[in-house]
Amino acid sequence: MKIIVIGATGTIGSAVSKELGERHEIVKVGSTRGDVQVDMTSLDSIRQMYQKIGKIDAMVSTAGNAHFGPLDQLTQKEFEVGLGSKFLGQVNLVLLGQDFMNDGGSFTLTSGILSQDPIPGGTAVTPINAAVEGFVLGASIEMPRGIRINAVSPGVLEESMEQIGAFFQGHVPVPGWKVAKAYSKSVEGRLNGQVFRVW
Amino acid sequence: MKIIVIGATGTIGSAVSKELGERHEIVKVGSTRGDVQVDMTSLDSIRQMYQKIGKIDAMVSTAGNAHFGPLDQLTQKEFEVGLGSKFLGQVNLVLLGQDFMNDGGSFTLTSGILSQDPIPGGTAVTPINAAVEGFVLGASIEMPRGIRINAVSPGVLEESMEQIGAFFQGHVPVPGWKVAKAYSKSVEGRLNGQVFRVW
Repeated sequence: MKIIVIGATGTIGSAVSKELGERHEIVKVGSTRGDVQVDMTSLDSIRQMYQKIGKIDAMVSTAGNAHFGPLDQLTQKEFEVGLGSKFLGQVNLVLLGQDFMNDGGSFTLTSGILSQDPIPGGTAVTPINAAVEGFVLGASIEMPRGIRINAVSPGVLEESMEQIGAFFQGHVPVPGWKVAKAYSKSVEGRLNGQVFRVW
Repeated sequence: MKIIVIGATGTIGSAVSKELGERHEIVKVGSTRGDVQVDMTSLDSIRQMYQKIGKIDAMVSTAGNAHFGPLDQLTQKEFEVGLGSKFLGQVNLVLLGQDFMNDGGSFTLTSGILSQDPIPGGTAVTPINAAVEGFVLGASIEMPRGIRINAVSPGVLEESMEQIGAFFQGHVPVPGWKVAKAYSKSVEGRLNGQVFRVW
């Protein structure tokens, strides 16, 4: 299969590229590095990326930001960070990617544990992850030509603990290689409309 | 209790106003009708509404739009309808309403059955409802002064079947009076961070 991995130079993306790269052709996409670059908040940039890469059998997105910070400091602006990037960015990767997806291909997006298991400072993240999962569920029953769509919901990564572990007290971190298996299950399996939780 | 009901002239809002009005003072808010008017897509309008009404013990929102339509006709624009209205509109009703909420008061928002039970044509609605539920979950562990926040997730209403029933084939409609009971449970009970499903 020819598989695009968006966010391929990040912690999850590199683990996914390694896992799927053992059996498939991977096009690594990053915001500044990788084989091809994309700004996932820009429709034009996403379109250009797909046109450059051409027909694909799977798209995996491990990219997208959201705002962490306490509720008493949140305004609409902080929600818009995640809405524009992790939510609409991933939605647009699917909407614009459909024309480049071969019959029976798959989209795999990334949500995160906070959609079900909130933390203090995560009020502008939890709804974004939940929206990504909702999009996957909604779109899964409308995708054409046997195309599937799933999400992977990772717990906090072992590799990210030094950076953001303080936010996730009491959470049991998961290794990147284990999270990568869930993307493999989505791409190489047959399930549709699922959220694969790796917690 | 002094309770604001946003969307009070709508199908659910009028049932909620009737249910809670038997025991409490209701301020009915609509976009064009009611005791006070609000445009929930405008921060200024929401601020003015709260300033006009003053201190409250509960805010119930039964308002907010989202776009219905087939996946192959969706662009970012169709998602932004629900994001701006049903999601960010309700988020802003909470963020700006905190200063007017008495200690131990409550916010009750509205999501909908599509967050778990998708229909064709609902791909731009399911993630909006999921995001509302995510916001409630995330915010519930950060609310100050004993303030609670919940959502009610109604199924398709008996009263709405003539208008939108064709979208909801196979769904068992629920009467407005029964949905109103869930808002009463949220406002007059003690639970926090819950989604009350009335299906």
